[in-house]
Amino acid sequence: MNAPTLTLTRRVRSTPFTSRIESFGITSYTVYNHMLLATQIVDVEDDYWHLRRAVQVWDVSCERQVEICGPDAARLAQMLTVRDMREFPIGRCGYAPVVDGDGHLINDPVVTKVGDDRFWFSVSDSDVVLWAGGIAHALGLDVRVFEPDVWPLAVQGPYAEDVIATVFGEAVRDIRFFRFAPLPFEDHELIVARTGWSAQGGFEIYVDDAELGGRLFDAVMIAGDQHDIRPGCPNLIERLEAGLMTYGSDITRDDTALEAGLGRFCALEAPIEAIGIEALRRQKAEGVRRQIASIAIDGDRLPICRDPWPVIADGRQVGSVTSAAWSPRLEINVALSMMAIEHAAVGSTVVVDTPDGARRATVSTTPFPGASQR
Amino acid sequence: MNAPTLTLTRRVRSTPFTSRIESFGITSYTVYNHMLLATQIVDVEDDYWHLRRAVQVWDVSCERQVEICGPDAARLAQMLTVRDMREFPIGRCGYAPVVDGDGHLINDPVVTKVGDDRFWFSVSDSDVVLWAGGIAHALGLDVRVFEPDVWPLAVQGPYAEDVIATVFGEAVRDIRFFRFAPLPFEDHELIVARTGWSAQGGFEIYVDDAELGGRLFDAVMIAGDQHDIRPGCPNLIERLEAGLMTYGSDITRDDTALEAGLGRFCALEAPIEAIGIEALRRQKAEGVRRQIASIAIDGDRLPICRDPWPVIADGRQVGSVTSAAWSPRLEINVALSMMAIEHAAVGSTVVVDTPDGARRATVSTTPFPGASQR
Repeated sequence: MNAPTLTLTRRVRSTPFTSRIESFGITSYTVYNHMLLATQIVDVEDDYWHLRRAVQVWDVSCERQVEICGPDAARLAQMLTVRDMREFPIGRCGYAPVVDGDGHLINDPVVTKVGDDRFWFSVSDSDVVLWAGGIAHALGLDVRVFEPDVWPLAVQGPYAEDVIATVFGEAVRDIRFFRFAPLPFEDHELIVARTGWSAQGGFEIYVDDAELGGRLFDAVMIAGDQHDIRPGCPNLIERLEAGLMTYGSDITRDDTALEAGLGRFCALEAPIEAIGIEALRRQKAEGVRRQIASIAIDGDRLPICRDPWPVIADGRQVGSVTSAAWSPRLEINVALSMMAIEHAAVGSTVVVDTPDGARRATVSTTPFPGASQR
Repeated sequence: MNAPTLTLTRRVRSTPFTSRIESFGITSYTVYNHMLLATQIVDVEDDYWHLRRAVQVWDVSCERQVEICGPDAARLAQMLTVRDMREFPIGRCGYAPVVDGDGHLINDPVVTKVGDDRFWFSVSDSDVVLWAGGIAHALGLDVRVFEPDVWPLAVQGPYAEDVIATVFGEAVRDIRFFRFAPLPFEDHELIVARTGWSAQGGFEIYVDDAELGGRLFDAVMIAGDQHDIRPGCPNLIERLEAGLMTYGSDITRDDTALEAGLGRFCALEAPIEAIGIEALRRQKAEGVRRQIASIAIDGDRLPICRDPWPVIADGRQVGSVTSAAWSPRLEINVALSMMAIEHAAVGSTVVVDTPDGARRATVSTTPFPGASQR
């Protein structure tokens, strides 16, 4: 069978950058938050090497913002996440796990405090706008919950800072990791954050004007010309080397925030009113029985992981590989797996039941060696 | 540019039927409720003619069920929809618009009352499980809200009843339109409903056991062999001839239930506690200013509608075409458009600004002539 194409209709939303990306050429898409997200521009290995040596512009409009604003915004934002939001400063971006009453993950967004009564949850692939909106409606909170038309554009790779400095000025060099600053482009102020879904470093620009976005895209391409810039996208190999999890693939509603390895973002000791925090406190007291881990699978190149691959030890299933890719740099299959805690330590060896047969595998450090070049 | 493929990962979930559909062959997918949904098996016109003359088996697992069960289930179900659920009988399926506090559409599901304290909302493409779950959590309702592992399998086309009768027995012939009955397959009882997303008639079977589902699929294929059965999927041409709207394409959160043409399912006179009903009452009193309509666009074959096409009358925009397809039977472009009310009457003529230039168009009856053969 030839690989099925993706049917392009309004429901899988285009972005202000889609026509530019498509005129460059694109091999594969996925759908993320009801929106197009490229997965391969040339092919996944070519994209990987290019991302590590040059610079890419990524259309990550699908990182939808859920805006919460109004007098009760701070209260609702704190209810939504088990991260401690009490002293969270304007200008910071932070992982902020959103869990249900049982501590199970609804989303693993990055939260940005845009103003005192205004928060953006930059969400992974689930309709947090409905979770937050349902709670706000039921409690009669004085707050607006909606998805503003904001389309993040990422610039990632070793030359990202130079490109962004050319477009926005030298002030970008002072932005620290996971901080943002409002910077001018044309006569418009845009939020520029030192964030992004790669280990190569870079920025994300929160574009809130579609036409301006097109011109910004063009300005970034011109600024990056000397560094061989081209369109790119989150790269399967690169993100697995870095140990970056995808909600829906590697972590799901079946997993708690602690099992998903997000414990350091869960303020379990803090006296905060956050949905699910009691369940996570109980789980921590009782002991977390499984956790996500990076693993290296021996042997030659494996196919893409569509359905979880069982992980076996001592004759029984102790985990599931949920994403895997051949690393042409490390010459191993790099993967993420949910693992029983007693098999999750670095160096632990297991067997993975892959479509190409049983393979030996070893739990790795996260990230893999050399994932980041910084 | 070649048409981009869809990258197949765990996040775009496979179903118990995926391997069978793919071994037959499939041209295109979409992603719907984070799950694979075929859009073309051979090609959209070949699939269309086959659906009208024979019978098809559709993997519509992506029609996820949101189950609400427990002592407060009936109360929450009524809060979630502006349909009057008070006398809703077990055994019926019904459209049940789910709207926010402003009357704007969150989803247009079909609700099934499975038991006195147990409802299934069979949802279109948005995470109703989060909306319903957020409300239930905030109000402390004694209810469980979750997506059970239920994968609907549809059999659609003129010979659907014969095929289903061969598999489940003659009792299926007594099931009325939008009613269901529990019927045996092997030693298991499955809900079989006379529903489906085509005008050709047929059934949907709510499969709640993955392995049984595979055997059911095979039994349906054998039973349909004499009628030239093959895998199919919701067909763009057929659904536009029938006037079947898609949430996310033709109707969105920007539209109220009344603008989406769902007024007959909104019990605005009933004394019920339903979210958004006050807003819809106000809108009805003030007058609905736009509504969805079927329109026929003149001229030869148009491309697929990715972004809304402006509809022009009297020199200004009066609507947007959101889906369009060439009907090889009617030899016109059949479409759905949101229209200003004063241009929405059957026979009204407008101009559509298509990618192939301005075209004359006429508001049609819904459905188009001959859409259903029954």
